[in-house]
Order: sequence, then structure tokens, then C-alpha cells
Amino acid sequence: VTLDTSRRRTRSDGERSRRAILEASARLATVDGLRGLTIGGLAEATGMSKSGLYSHFGSKEVLQLATIEAADAIFQEEVVAPATASGEPMEQIVQLSERYLDYVGSDVFPGGCFFAAASPEVDTHPGRVKDRIAAFQAGWMGLFVGLIARAQANGDIDEREDPTQLGFELNSMLTLANSIYVMFADRSAFDRARRGIRHRLGLEPGSSQRESNRARDRR
Amino acid sequence: VTLDTSRRRTRSDGERSRRAILEASARLATVDGLRGLTIGGLAEATGMSKSGLYSHFGSKEVLQLATIEAADAIFQEEVVAPATASGEPMEQIVQLSERYLDYVGSDVFPGGCFFAAASPEVDTHPGRVKDRIAAFQAGWMGLFVGLIARAQANGDIDEREDPTQLGFELNSMLTLANSIYVMFADRSAFDRARRGIRHRLGLEPGSSQRESNRARDRR
Repeated sequence: VTLDTSRRRTRSDGERSRRAILEASARLATVDGLRGLTIGGLAEATGMSKSGLYSHFGSKEVLQLATIEAADAIFQEEVVAPATASGEPMEQIVQLSERYLDYVGSDVFPGGCFFAAASPEVDTHPGRVKDRIAAFQAGWMGLFVGLIARAQANGDIDEREDPTQLGFELNSMLTLANSIYVMFADRSAFDRARRGIRHRLGLEPGSSQRESNRARDRR
Repeated sequence: VTLDTSRRRTRSDGERSRRAILEASARLATVDGLRGLTIGGLAEATGMSKSGLYSHFGSKEVLQLATIEAADAIFQEEVVAPATASGEPMEQIVQLSERYLDYVGSDVFPGGCFFAAASPEVDTHPGRVKDRIAAFQAGWMGLFVGLIARAQANGDIDEREDPTQLGFELNSMLTLANSIYVMFADRSAFDRARRGIRHRLGLEPGSSQRESNRARDRR
């Protein structure tokens, strides 16, 4: 009888309720961990019944994977989509960085970037959850690498740069800014990442002459 | 009676046993989390009795703090002490980076750098454990900043560099190399960090001319 009731509620609540539950779950995961997620804990956080949540998700792994999908949807909406909607590749690289720092600093998740919080937790536990987080990280890095290659084709980044190397360096500054912000509530880390990224891309004020000198030096 | 027995064992096992237990605990913490540490789990991992461990540590927080001290001692021995024992400040910066990457890549801990694993787990949980991890991170960053300032005084790093900014950039590459290695078992991340750090320090082959041009451009 309980199960039947939950199923009726599930259908009438529909996708909006599912998304609200999963967003709560994603927020919870950045505090207590993705492996710390339990249907009991989520029931407490959302006021839903455990039986209702079981009927939605069935197992902890299904809940974890659905939570990652919801977090990825938020990340795409907050960071990737607005940054890559338009503009030259070089501008998109800058916008990806800016949107990432905004997403961290506006506390979309209480534990900072969802994926930065989840990665070190799942990376020692092989399985579908780790694979899904790894796929996100590979995709995020690939986004930078692809845009860097396009910016090189446009002549905005030196063609002798290795896109994977440059993508690594840009991403490293975003990642450490996230960590410092969550640990120390220190927003100056965002400025450090911005400054480092703009410097690395040769975008500081008056940098075009420097860039051409650097390019000459590399020959 | 059980407690008395453990106490006798504790005394006779002495510090060596304590250190062995805490090293096991630190390894366990990089897999299951510092917050996931339990006296029961540690008893299982070490073959010690729970009552013996209780007599050593008493509470979960005491165990966590003792585990962090043990991990810090390992970090100092593996990374900081050999890198800073001698040499010019610039060489010590390079050696700190090399020793860090060696410490990660030689799997001292199964989950990579102990502190990189622990930080995102504890950063949303105020308390003594978070404070201790934050103090480590501040000290690690401060080590770079101090060496950079000394390398500037020596004329090996441009005096117009902000040491905090440069320390942030170097540390970010080390940190992301750790994450990628643990997630993807990809050792090329170590080379990316090495290459990025040497580039940022102006240490690539033939870079001295480039450095002087850069310095000129900044004027």
C-alpha cells in the first residue's frame, strides 16, 4: 500500500519534483560526500518518505548516478552553455573560466564545485560512479583543449602551444581557486585564477606586444 | 581487565606501533575518507583490537587528528625535508615540486596526496580537523611563497612577480597533477605539471633570453 501511494505521488509530482530532489541530493553530496548519500539522509533533507525515494531510485548507486546527472545539468546551464553560446574561441575560453568562478563563488553548491568535491572521493573506488565523474572531468578538460585548438586556428593562441598542456594549466588554476575558496572562504583566490589565466593567455593589458615578443623568442 | 591488557600492550609496543597504526589509518583515510575513519574500521585494517585502539585514541576526533599528524610527518620526510635541506631558493622550489610529484606517483598513499584527498572532504565541516588540514595547506603554500621571495632577493625570479600569485600558480599545477593521476592513472599529468612549472619559472632550455624580454616588456 505504501509503495502504491508513493508511485501515485511520483507520477503526479513528475519531473519537477524529481529534479528538486536530485538538486537537494547534489547539494548534500558536496557536504557529506557522494558516497555518504543515503536514501535515509535524503529523505530527512527533503521531507520525502523513504519509501517514496526508494520508488524513485531503488538503490544507492542509481541515486548517486541520478545525482551526478542533475549536477551535470546544473553545470551545463550555469557554466558551459552561457560561455559557449557565442563568441570567438578565445573569448569562450575566458568566459568558461569566468562562469566557472562565478558558479563556485555564488555557492550553487555549499561545497563548491560539485565535481571537484566528488572526484577525490570516488577516484579510489572503481565502478560506474567513478566512471561517470571521470567522464565529466575528461569532457571538461576536452572542452578547453578543443577551444584552444580553435583559437590557435584563429591565430589568437600561438600555434606552437600544446593545447593539452595549456588546458591543463588553465584548469589547474580554476580547480585550486575552488579549493581555496571552500577551505578558507577566500575570494582573492578567484582573482588569482583570473590573473593567472589571463597572463597565461597573453591577455593582460598591453600584452599583445609581449605575446609577439614571446612568439619571437620561441623561434 | 581488557582495558588493562591493552594499556600494557600499548606501553610495550611503544611509539613504533603507534606510528604503524597511524600510517595504516592515513592510508585508509585516502581511500575511505578521513571522516570515514572509524576505530572499528581501523581495527579491521590493522588486526588490532578495538579496545586497544580505544585505549590509544579514545575518540574518533583524536584518531583523525593523530592520523593527520602522522600524514604530515610522512609529507615532511618525503617532500619538504629533502627538498629544502640545501640549495638556492630557486632550486628548492623546483625540488619541492619534484618531490611532491614523486610522493604522489610512488603511491605513498593509495589515494594520492593525503592532504589533497582530505581537504575537499573536511572543508565543509568546521572544527579542529578542518582547522588542522587548513593549517597544513596554508603552510604548504607559505613554503612556496617564502622561497619565491628569497629567489627574488637572489635575482632568480623577477622582482615584480607577486609571490602569492606565483605560489598559487605553481601549487595549482601540482594539485591538478595529483587529481588526474589518481582519477585516470595517467602519469603524463606529472610531466604537464613539471613542464608548466618550469615554463612559469622561466627554466626551460634557452629561456633566459625569453625571461629578459618578458621583464623588458613588463616595464
